[in-house]
Amino acid sequence: MSEEKVILVTNDDSYTSPGIKALVEVASEFGRPVVVAPDKPQSGMGHAITLNHPLRLTPVTLFKDIEAYKCSGTPVDCVKLAVDKVLNGQPDLCVSGINHGSNASINVIYSGTMSAAMEAALEGINSVGFSSLNYSYKADMSTCQEVARQIIRNVLENGMPNSKLLNVNIPNVTLDQLQGIKICRQAIGTWKEEFVKRVDPFKKNYYWMTGNFVCDDKGTDTDIWALNHNYVSVVPVQYDLTEYSGLSFLNEKWEFNAKT
Amino acid sequence: MSEEKVILVTNDDSYTSPGIKALVEVASEFGRPVVVAPDKPQSGMGHAITLNHPLRLTPVTLFKDIEAYKCSGTPVDCVKLAVDKVLNGQPDLCVSGINHGSNASINVIYSGTMSAAMEAALEGINSVGFSSLNYSYKADMSTCQEVARQIIRNVLENGMPNSKLLNVNIPNVTLDQLQGIKICRQAIGTWKEEFVKRVDPFKKNYYWMTGNFVCDDKGTDTDIWALNHNYVSVVPVQYDLTEYSGLSFLNEKWEFNAKT
Repeated sequence: MSEEKVILVTNDDSYTSPGIKALVEVASEFGRPVVVAPDKPQSGMGHAITLNHPLRLTPVTLFKDIEAYKCSGTPVDCVKLAVDKVLNGQPDLCVSGINHGSNASINVIYSGTMSAAMEAALEGINSVGFSSLNYSYKADMSTCQEVARQIIRNVLENGMPNSKLLNVNIPNVTLDQLQGIKICRQAIGTWKEEFVKRVDPFKKNYYWMTGNFVCDDKGTDTDIWALNHNYVSVVPVQYDLTEYSGLSFLNEKWEFNAKT
Repeated sequence: MSEEKVILVTNDDSYTSPGIKALVEVASEFGRPVVVAPDKPQSGMGHAITLNHPLRLTPVTLFKDIEAYKCSGTPVDCVKLAVDKVLNGQPDLCVSGINHGSNASINVIYSGTMSAAMEAALEGINSVGFSSLNYSYKADMSTCQEVARQIIRNVLENGMPNSKLLNVNIPNVTLDQLQGIKICRQAIGTWKEEFVKRVDPFKKNYYWMTGNFVCDDKGTDTDIWALNHNYVSVVPVQYDLTEYSGLSFLNEKWEFNAKT
């Protein structure tokens, strides 16, 4: 028997969300889960970190016999603090989620769930972010749990791509309706914002951010296509943001003054 | 004469920072700057957005005759709100900075400066983030201004790579000492955190994030190499995070159960 695996579990919806409990249950089938998750919802926090004030870390009970902490910082803070002060080293795997809401396509950029997973991968830890397209906190998590089970088994048995990071999104269907699991690229899409203006009781304006996701990418190899056709999407994710094709463009087309 | 260019100027150090004033001065040589910047420092905010409370947008005076606003949100919020409610459409160019501190290598992921620039690029706007390796608010900005001048001239005259986004970092040297401007890839590096534990007057622990940047990437084509050798680094940046080489790895090595 190999040694017990240590699996760091985090998310961005906070330690109280049903999604993280569902993920802890699956992680415990593969090793010893340790939970470090935000003490309040942190959706849309992207890769934010807390620089100007200190962090709190407090033990909480999610399940009997599972080591768990709430942290006052962002999802990325949770991972950094977990590695340095809770685990005193790297876990065998980090799983983030299960997020209540999609992180497909460009949502990967804004997502606290995926940023937590990316932080772990940056530090050299195999890492997976899981997101469900069912936004309800009352959603049945059994399909998501079966998907997480298959993904975690593959990570541990078959290994990971170079960047050690996956973005897994799960359509809002039953296991019977699920068409399968597809390896995909990130669809090119964006949010089109429309801010709604309101006036406060003191006659000053304020603005609510609203918007629609727009995706003109018609590829059948994308995460959006997979999800629209009731497949789970699995996108291998990198954090080298260099646009390599741009290097030759700039070297050929751009000119600087003699000295510079 | 062509029509006057509209140049959106933002940052993450807030509208009060010397860096944004230096950038507005240069932008005004090329067109009409419009400033929408955070009302307080937002370093390390990554690609965070404000979902659960409304935003304020208030006119401020940076320079006579320059339209400028402070915004209560994140750097990304500033760009979204500027496009939708201040400019009522897209500017010809977005410039973010000049940041007081490096955004080279993996700092691009955590940077509010670069996330603001990325948000503009995502929306289809040519966009450049500028950062100075001099962290002091009292720094002489003349080298940075000359670099920004050359970069903006190239963007407007010679065009941009596909993703329309550049990460420009400027070493802390005089113009005489500057060796030139180099087109680079992002160096592979990471932060190694060490949290410092303190005890509050109520006997409870809290943690300050500290850390060191670690870069084992020895390439001479990286932004870190360029900056260490007194060159400006220019990295073309993308937001398609798919690790393409990982697609074939996963398709070949991974296995799912029959049904899924």
